[in-house]
Amino acid sequence: MEKNYKLTLAYDGTRFFGWEHQPDKETIQGKLETVLERLQGHPVDLIGAGRTDAGVHARAMVASVRLDVRRSPEEIRDYMNRYLPDSIAVREVKEASDRFHARYNALGKTYRYTCFTGPVKPVFDRKYVTLLDFSPDIEKMRQAAEILRGEHDFRAFCGNPRMKKSTVRLVDTIQIEERKDRILFTFHGTGFLQNMVRILVGTLLEVGRGRWEPAYVREILDSKDRKLAGPTAPPEGLCLMKVDY
Amino acid sequence: MEKNYKLTLAYDGTRFFGWEHQPDKETIQGKLETVLERLQGHPVDLIGAGRTDAGVHARAMVASVRLDVRRSPEEIRDYMNRYLPDSIAVREVKEASDRFHARYNALGKTYRYTCFTGPVKPVFDRKYVTLLDFSPDIEKMRQAAEILRGEHDFRAFCGNPRMKKSTVRLVDTIQIEERKDRILFTFHGTGFLQNMVRILVGTLLEVGRGRWEPAYVREILDSKDRKLAGPTAPPEGLCLMKVDY
Repeated sequence: MEKNYKLTLAYDGTRFFGWEHQPDKETIQGKLETVLERLQGHPVDLIGAGRTDAGVHARAMVASVRLDVRRSPEEIRDYMNRYLPDSIAVREVKEASDRFHARYNALGKTYRYTCFTGPVKPVFDRKYVTLLDFSPDIEKMRQAAEILRGEHDFRAFCGNPRMKKSTVRLVDTIQIEERKDRILFTFHGTGFLQNMVRILVGTLLEVGRGRWEPAYVREILDSKDRKLAGPTAPPEGLCLMKVDY
Repeated sequence: MEKNYKLTLAYDGTRFFGWEHQPDKETIQGKLETVLERLQGHPVDLIGAGRTDAGVHARAMVASVRLDVRRSPEEIRDYMNRYLPDSIAVREVKEASDRFHARYNALGKTYRYTCFTGPVKPVFDRKYVTLLDFSPDIEKMRQAAEILRGEHDFRAFCGNPRMKKSTVRLVDTIQIEERKDRILFTFHGTGFLQNMVRILVGTLLEVGRGRWEPAYVREILDSKDRKLAGPTAPPEGLCLMKVDY
């Protein structure tokens, strides 16, 4: 009997071309679907809570999938982990209600972006941080973050220039913390546009380096013009931490 | 004027053939000497506190080197980090007394060996842990560790069968801790033989899985026979944490 499952996934996105399957490219969804097809005996349709960009990591991406297998959720998890590369892990498999849909039912997401500002490059988590060659002004970035926080049209922070649908999103948390040689940006919101977290970080860092005053981010928002916002920060510092349902 | 320097180094040993330079192989010492030769204009002799095996990591390896350069210690550090691969970092460069010798003056070393026992393979530090497919009995391993601790002839735990010199060593700490899905083995001693930490871990794990009673490790010690000890545990879980002077 076919059942619906909720999968919680962790991955090191370094060597992947992002979440979404693409012909002839290694993607997270592609790897997972290959293993599930092997388990199921025919192609399956894995639905992710969202799409992460090439090089972006996840500690708890969520996906849903319908399977007809005589295995317990733990057995499905162990089967998948046996055949997945070391850089992708299925943390949990749970039976879900028949109506559960990882994308449509997602209520919110938490992303973490980590910058490293120390004098000596980090060795052991070097693939999970973005190196900065300057020490940004944390207070100014917090002032700018306060302006960006809330419900806005984030069109200026959208990486897809042909985005037809609404670009209004609610970002209720933008937290900036210093921890030794690291700066952690934590974002929580109901949803994020393509590249949005990375463009927000790229913009905050321009404020942090003194190129722009914090108040300028309001002009960027109002402009709805991607060209006015900062650069798209590199993918390696970004990690999807949690999806709320 | 030539000066003597003390270097503190961190490295991810995954892709290297160990510390010691070898022709046509990528080693930590080889990489460091190549960068120092470039800085100095002629070959230099870098002395490490010890040799780590292929695949073993270090958070604070120490090395000494004589250099004649018009740069401050911080400038030497930054120069080296600019040209070293991401998997090797110079954490600190300090001027040392003329008599300082990283190997002869080392008074003790701390090694950490990390095993992972959880049901789901770890993604982000997967290269720094050894996966176990069983949950060892911690109390029995601690009993065996108590017997191994102290000054002994560790010939049975030496990976070099042609070792001519004394194989007596003092290991004053063998600590075994559980932290969530991880087991951490911490060793401190005045010196360690080739592969010794890995053979000690391999032996303790045989006790932990119930193959041997703790008291059997005394027989292994007394036998001075490498064939009686456990297997050499894989390198990826091992990290040199500190060298005392």
